[in-house]
This record gives sequence, structure tokens and C-alpha cells, in this order.
Amino acid sequence: MNAPERFFLPDTQSETDPRNLPIQRVGVKGLRYPMRVVNAAGDDIATIGTFSMTVGLPGDQKGTHMSRFVELLEALPPRLRLEDFAALEAAMRKRLGADSGRLDVAFPYFIRKSAPVSGVASLLDYDARVIVEGKHEHSQRTQLHLTIAATSLCPCSKNISEYGAHNQRSHLTVRVETAGLQLEALAALVEAQASCEVFGLLKRPDEKYVTERAYDNPKFVEDLVRDIALALAAHPQIGHYHVTAENFESIHNHSAFAELWSEPAPNEGI
Amino acid sequence: MNAPERFFLPDTQSETDPRNLPIQRVGVKGLRYPMRVVNAAGDDIATIGTFSMTVGLPGDQKGTHMSRFVELLEALPPRLRLEDFAALEAAMRKRLGADSGRLDVAFPYFIRKSAPVSGVASLLDYDARVIVEGKHEHSQRTQLHLTIAATSLCPCSKNISEYGAHNQRSHLTVRVETAGLQLEALAALVEAQASCEVFGLLKRPDEKYVTERAYDNPKFVEDLVRDIALALAAHPQIGHYHVTAENFESIHNHSAFAELWSEPAPNEGI
Amino acid sequence: MNAPERFFLPDTQSETDPRNLPIQRVGVKGLRYPMRVVNAAGDDIATIGTFSMTVGLPGDQKGTHMSRFVELLEALPPRLRLEDFAALEAAMRKRLGADSGRLDVAFPYFIRKSAPVSGVASLLDYDARVIVEGKHEHSQRTQLHLTIAATSLCPCSKNISEYGAHNQRSHLTVRVETAGLQLEALAALVEAQASCEVFGLLKRPDEKYVTERAYDNPKFVEDLVRDIALALAAHPQIGHYHVTAENFESIHNHSAFAELWSEPAPNEGI
Amino acid sequence: MNAPERFFLPDTQSETDPRNLPIQRVGVKGLRYPMRVVNAAGDDIATIGTFSMTVGLPGDQKGTHMSRFVELLEALPPRLRLEDFAALEAAMRKRLGADSGRLDVAFPYFIRKSAPVSGVASLLDYDARVIVEGKHEHSQRTQLHLTIAATSLCPCSKNISEYGAHNQRSHLTVRVETAGLQLEALAALVEAQASCEVFGLLKRPDEKYVTERAYDNPKFVEDLVRDIALALAAHPQIGHYHVTAENFESIHNHSAFAELWSEPAPNEGI
Repeated sequence: MNAPERFFLPDTQSETDPRNLPIQRVGVKGLRYPMRVVNAAGDDIATIGTFSMTVGLPGDQKGTHMSRFVELLEALPPRLRLEDFAALEAAMRKRLGADSGRLDVAFPYFIRKSAPVSGVASLLDYDARVIVEGKHEHSQRTQLHLTIAATSLCPCSKNISEYGAHNQRSHLTVRVETAGLQLEALAALVEAQASCEVFGLLKRPDEKYVTERAYDNPKFVEDLVRDIALALAAHPQIGHYHVTAENFESIHNHSAFAELWSEPAPNEGI
Repeated sequence: MNAPERFFLPDTQSETDPRNLPIQRVGVKGLRYPMRVVNAAGDDIATIGTFSMTVGLPGDQKGTHMSRFVELLEALPPRLRLEDFAALEAAMRKRLGADSGRLDVAFPYFIRKSAPVSGVASLLDYDARVIVEGKHEHSQRTQLHLTIAATSLCPCSKNISEYGAHNQRSHLTVRVETAGLQLEALAALVEAQASCEVFGLLKRPDEKYVTERAYDNPKFVEDLVRDIALALAAHPQIGHYHVTAENFESIHNHSAFAELWSEPAPNEGI
Repeated sequence: MNAPERFFLPDTQSETDPRNLPIQRVGVKGLRYPMRVVNAAGDDIATIGTFSMTVGLPGDQKGTHMSRFVELLEALPPRLRLEDFAALEAAMRKRLGADSGRLDVAFPYFIRKSAPVSGVASLLDYDARVIVEGKHEHSQRTQLHLTIAATSLCPCSKNISEYGAHNQRSHLTVRVETAGLQLEALAALVEAQASCEVFGLLKRPDEKYVTERAYDNPKFVEDLVRDIALALAAHPQIGHYHVTAENFESIHNHSAFAELWSEPAPNEGI
Repeated sequence: MNAPERFFLPDTQSETDPRNLPIQRVGVKGLRYPMRVVNAAGDDIATIGTFSMTVGLPGDQKGTHMSRFVELLEALPPRLRLEDFAALEAAMRKRLGADSGRLDVAFPYFIRKSAPVSGVASLLDYDARVIVEGKHEHSQRTQLHLTIAATSLCPCSKNISEYGAHNQRSHLTVRVETAGLQLEALAALVEAQASCEVFGLLKRPDEKYVTERAYDNPKFVEDLVRDIALALAAHPQIGHYHVTAENFESIHNHSAFAELWSEPAPNEGI
């Protein structure tokens, strides 16, 4: 830091703002940082976080100090647990002198799975997102988002056809408020409700298994969100939840889609 | 329609569902349809809508009838006014026999603008989105989203530098509940608050003008959302609003971002 | 145009460049313009072109005149046939005083199709792209790209399983050099080689048909590109071709992919 | 592996194909895998590779064995150097019994940079891509792609305006054939030719510096590709090169774009 020079450069952001209009969220967006996330087994997963970091700004302050958000990322520990994001949000609010803060980090996540018959192991990719919102000193809420690829097979197509049934890749998303739930557990809960789960690596005996498993287990998008919702509602570590299912239909060029949430109404943030 | 065959094919969707879990939204997503939207001057704008169409499903019904959503699109009038989307949502609820519905259509929009000095005209592209939510017979709300590209010039950079100031393209987004407001009026209201508006076509005298105009009019993302919020709040046709400003910083590879809304808290939908 | 002022503003682009390094392509990119494209039946399809327009720049010229590309778009006729893009490329080369030019326009395209049993009609969306390259006065080549969604059903899965077979949406792309071929004919040629074609709107008898049709007609990505290549090679209006097939596998979260071209080797451009 | 069962499941892919049409590339696409890449200083960078892995298929073989590609990824060493990708391509050709192969891996990359005045360090993100093509036993070519964000400031705007100059974020891309060149060296070579380089973290004295540096160093897209081309041509470790510059213009909603390559003509692949 070139300290002396700082004294001579005006700090425009710290000026008083005459409009007196508080801003709910201001900060940085779209910032990519490499990180290693610790998985349920205690191993590191190399990934990249895309960060949005914002704080509330009082009505009489002209601007926030954008560089401080990046300084906080630079000080991240080399290995991160999900609870470290809550600590980062608290540190952010303190460093920015703010009453409220919101940390939103999206990152691909990887889980090692074993093929159902051969047992060969491979990684499968998921899209995870952690949102931490803090207000004042003692209140903080954490929301976990996970997008899971899966197979869906159409009950109507199976019922009306003499053989076969159209099936396709689906994206199942869940948003939950939780403390302590692992991504692996959340993924497994959701995958158990699909027509069949998907894998990175399948040998022929596995391919036979997943083909027949999906045919034995047809589900509409409606079935998918209902079954996932029931599983989430029954889980002791999960409070409010929000579920979507999107089938990239193999017989159309658009998706079938369903969305179900525990009341109150959903909110993209928290 | 092959009518006789319909009698022999089971209607899986109409079965009774034992889980008794209502679904807030089910339907189609990601459906692209060409359309011509009538602009403020009464002319047609050729564009493409990306439609999500969903209805609420009672707890005891297994599934909705997906093909009916597409039939509704097929019956759209060739030229559409914004109010036609409200009629489409109402027709959708009726056709699907549903108590609630949600129509979400995103489309590029184009406005002819005149360069500030030379007066040469060209089209500028915007991203518009209309969301109509209906419940029961008489309640319907329409939300208009518009993303506007603009120039932002950094007040801090101007203040601390002997010459020049970093500037960049920004995306300004507004979400408003409104009846009767034209996209042209909404775009103009927002563009007036930027450091400078952008154009498809500029000649050299215009380029001189916009360069100097932006330099004379520096704004942080904080200034942008505040000034737009004040303009929206003062507009007689606009109720609740939500504003964001994202500067694709020319000195970083990430964005500066601000978000401000009239209470109550925002919601991606309505 | 503010003519007098033009005399006093320096034209930096027209200066002599000392580096003497010709530039193969310079111009504008990512420009969205609404357009109506005339289909095979003579009807208008509303769509949006995303334009890249570039010309060659001699080694001794500092820069091109970017605003002229936009002026050319402003002068486009309201209804466009594919051959109008060749005229636009020629006009561009002339207007920019260039020896070579390249027009690249990508646009969603829509074809009305009839469901196979019920006969109900609906639009299906495709992604088209036209690239015109011109050199000197008399040489101009046009390349047509089309991306077609289709159903693929896995022969291996069908062979090894007692019932069912995994299937999924595929994207089939073709790039051809052609004169006079309609997009409708190109789409139909490709769709005939898929396990089954897809539709916007299907009733239950249609869904039964497409399910059974795909099961009767299993294809690997290898089969898809070979069968499409043979059909293209046999077509009298098609010269060199390039084909890809990407299956968004319903049992994985990645794609199976194949690419086949008539020699010489492929080139993203021409 | 469930070995006995393998004997009873037909191997459809290994059947003889009657069409006798060789396929240039077949394999997997869009496969995400976490990886740690070793940087110039010998440290690990956590990132995610998006892999396309393909081989040539003889005309008489029905299909390739898709699961083997994923097995190869599963066997990757935990830390990768750029040269390991060449070994992976060779292993892939061998494992698939193929005469030709192509490995294409795209991944975000991060370089720690020091701010120009304060010296504070931060990571900057880049988009890297390595393509290795092999044919027969002894021939292998490696191509390195790098996308670098930078600041560009318009010479015309500066020349014609009494104060200020529009500037914006640019994406500069280079594709080079090279042996042994580090990504850090390639990035530095390119950044030195921009109006100014960009940084993750800047303090006010740095912001003053980069603002004035860009104003002192105006460049068109034409200047950017020429200056980068000259620097690449002078580098002893670089053979053929391909350069693009795209300015996300702050006064338009489209890009200015230039593309320059050493002959022969470019090819998206190699």
C-alpha cells in the first residue's frame, strides 16, 4: 500500500449523500475465485466459486468500498467447509461497517459415485450455491441450493405405448434452509426420487440396470417435485424448502417443468 | 385429431393422486415462439418470445395437460400488445381448469433512437420480460422487466485522476408493476439517469458528445439505482419497483453491482 | 448528419498505419437486429439476427469505419430471403472499400410441422446461421448452418435390456455449401435420419407413435452422423458438408458426440 | 466390474458397420472434472476442466466405447502440468485403439498479480483451453488458447473530445502452437499490448494509475490485434498464432471486433 498517497486522493465513496435513500444491496458480482471445498469424507474438491458479495448501504452514505470485498476473498482459508461461508459473511459485514450483508457463491461440486452393478467409481458434477444473509449482530440465515441431473421416464408414454417410453435428462433443484446438512446427503435424498440417478461412468451391466430401473419407475415432473418435497419435509435437518424439476423432453424442444415449495412464497434470494 | 384412438389410450395425467400435495406451478418452460410486438408508435417489432407457462395443480390430481399450453401459443394473434399477455394468462387458466396461473415471457425488444448530434436513427436492443400472475377469477397482476444497456463513468476515477476516467457498459434492470406503461417510456426514464445512454449508430460528432456527456455526469452503481428509484417513485403509473445496476468494470474482470427496491422485499416472480 | 462539424473532427481511422500488418477481419460483433425471414411457403417468420460483419483491412490503414456496418443493417429490406444476405455482404465490401468481407448472421428459425397421427400443427424452433464470404469482385461463397433438435435412442441399451431403452434429446448440426436450398428441406433431410423427429405439440396418439418409432429405430451418435452424411452426399444441391450429433445422454450428465465431414478439413468459418 | 455378466451382454459398438464411412471424431463432450493445474511457480491452481475427448473411427466399425474416455479421466494424476494433457491424448488413442485422437479441455485459470502502485496482490481469472491432436504413433500437436480481459480506450474518442475518452472491458484471445510456453508468460505478453491490464484488486492510487495509463495509451481493436500479433511473431517459442480482440463498447450495446492470424487460414480446432 502506498500509504502517503492515500492522504491526498479524495475518498468519493465516503461523502455524504443528499438523496437519503438506503440501498439494500451493493457490492461486487461475477467474481471467480478458485477454492477447495471439503467434502463429507473430509477430502478436498477443487472448484471455482462465482461470488456475489453485497452489503446494505445507509441512506446518507454515497458509496461502499468495493476493493474490501476482494480483500476478503484473498484472505479465505485454502480449504473451505460450508460453515466458512457464514464466517465470511459476518467478516464482510464487519469489514464494510454494514448492518446487513449477503454472500452468494455458486460453484460446481463433485461427488464420487459407484455404478449400480459393476461398482466402478466416477465423479458426477452438480451445481451448488450457498447464500448467507446476515442482519445486525446475531441473525444469520444460510440457504443451500443444489442442482442434480437425473433420468426421468414418462408414465404416460409408457402407459400408452406397446413398447419403450420416452425418457430424458432432467435437472432437479432444491433450495433448503439448513444447518449442518452435507451436499452428499442432499444429493442422495433427491436422486432416490428420480426415475433413475445418473452416473459419470457406466459399464454394460450398469447400463442394463439403469435402463430397466427407469422403465420400472416412471415419473412426471409433478411426481418428481412431490416425491422430493415429501422426502425433504420428512428430514429432521431441513426447514423450508423449494423444489423444481425440469425435463429436457426427448420428444420436444422445450421442457416440462414443475415447482413446489413449502409456504411462505419463494424468493430467489432468501 | 385421431378421435377414435383417444378413447383407447389411458389419460394418466387425469388420475387421482394419493399424495395430496398441491403443486404451485406446473407447465412448460423454454418454449420459443416468433411474435410481432406492437410498439408505442403502433408499428410491429419482430421478436422471439421464450415462454414459461404454468398453472397450480390441486393435490388430488396426478398431472397437468402439457399439450394445451402449446395449443394456446398456436392460437396467439399475429400482432401482440402487452395487454394481450394478460388475456393469454386468463385463457390459460381457463383452458387448464386451474385456479392460478403464471405466464412468463422474455423477449428482446427494439427501440429506434436518434443519435444526439447527427440525428441518424438506429435500433437499440433491450431485454424485456412480462410476467402475469392470476388467481381465481378476478385477480391478476402484471409485472414488466426491462434490461437497458447504458454507459457508466466512475466518479472516484474522475476525482483522483489528472485526466480521463474509467467508464464501461452497464446493464440497468427495472421490474415494475404497472398498467399501461409503454416499454419506450420506461427505457427513456431509465436512460436519463445513466452517465450517458447508448446507441446502435453514432457518427463522429455524436461520439464526441457521448464521451463528454459521460465525463460530465459520473455515477457509481449506487448513484444509478438511487436516481432510477427516485424517477420510478415519482412516476404516476408505477407502483412497486425493483432496480439493479451492474457495471462491467473496465478496470476489473468482475462487476460492481447495486440493487434497490421499494418495500416489501423482492421476489423473482411477482 | 451534422455535416459542417465533420470537417473539424479528425478521422483517426483513416490515418496511415506504420505497422503494415493486414487484418483479415475487422468490424462489429454481437449486433442484434429484428428481421422477418421469408420461408419456403413465402410467409414471414419473425426472428432476430445476431450479426457479425467484418472486412479485411489493408496493412497501411489504421482502422475501419464501424458505423458503416450499422448503417447497412438499417437499410435492410423488411423481408429477407437467404439470397439477400449475399447481397448484404457485397454491399458491405463496397461500402467499406474492402477487398474481402464476411457476413455471419445467426437466427432462430421456425418451421410449422404436423404431428404424425393427429395432424395437429405447431411451430418447431431451429438455430440457423448464414455465413457469406466474399473476395474481390466475383467470388462469393455461402454456407448454411442448421441445428436441429431430435430424439435419439441407444441401440446398446435396447439390445442389453429386457425392456425399455434410454433415449434423449439430441442436437444435430449441419454446415453445407449450397445454392438455393431451403432451410425446410435441409431440416427434413436431417430429421428423417434421427431415431425420431421432435414436435412442438403432440396429442396422446402422437406420443404413442413417436415413442414406438424411436424404439424401432435406435441410433448411436455414430449412426446419426453417418446417415446424415450419406443423405447430404446424395443431395444434388449440396457440396461439401460438415455434420455433428450431440446426445444429451439421459443416463449421464455429459454428451455423446460425433463429427463427420467431407474432406477437406473443417473450418468454423468457411 | 461384474465380469461374468459381460459375456452375456452383446457388444453392439463392436459390430461391423456396413456403411463403410469413417468418422473423424467420436467420443464424449461437456464432461466437467475438477483438477489442480500446476502454475509457473509450481503451485496448484484449483479449477474445473470441461473435456471433449474424441477419436477417429474406422469405416467398418459401428461405434466407439464411450465409457473408456471417462475411465481415462478417472485415472488422471491429482496435479496436472500442461504436458500431461499430451500424455492423456496419447493414452486415449491407445486405450481406444484409434489412429487419431483429439483432446480439448477448457478451464478457468488464475494468475496472482500485483497492483501497479500499492503492490497489493490478487488473483485474476482467465479462460484457458488446451487442444492436443494426435495422428498415428509419432505426430502430436498442442494448441494453447487463452482469453484475457483488459482495458481498451478509444483513440478516436480521445482525439475528437475535449475531455475524457470512452473505454471498456475487452476480451483478447490468442491461439498458439507452442511447446513449453507458460500461461503466465502468454498472459503477460498480451496484457502489455492493451491500453491497460486489469486487476482483481485495486486501491485508490492504483485506480488513478490505471485510469491515466489507459488514457495515455489509446488503442482500437485493430491496434490490439496488430500489436499482439507482432509480439507473438517475435517470440521464439511461438509458431503459428491467431488473435482476436473484442471490445464490449461502452457507447454501444454491441462489440467492435478484430481477428488476425498468421497464414495459413484459421481453424477452430487445430
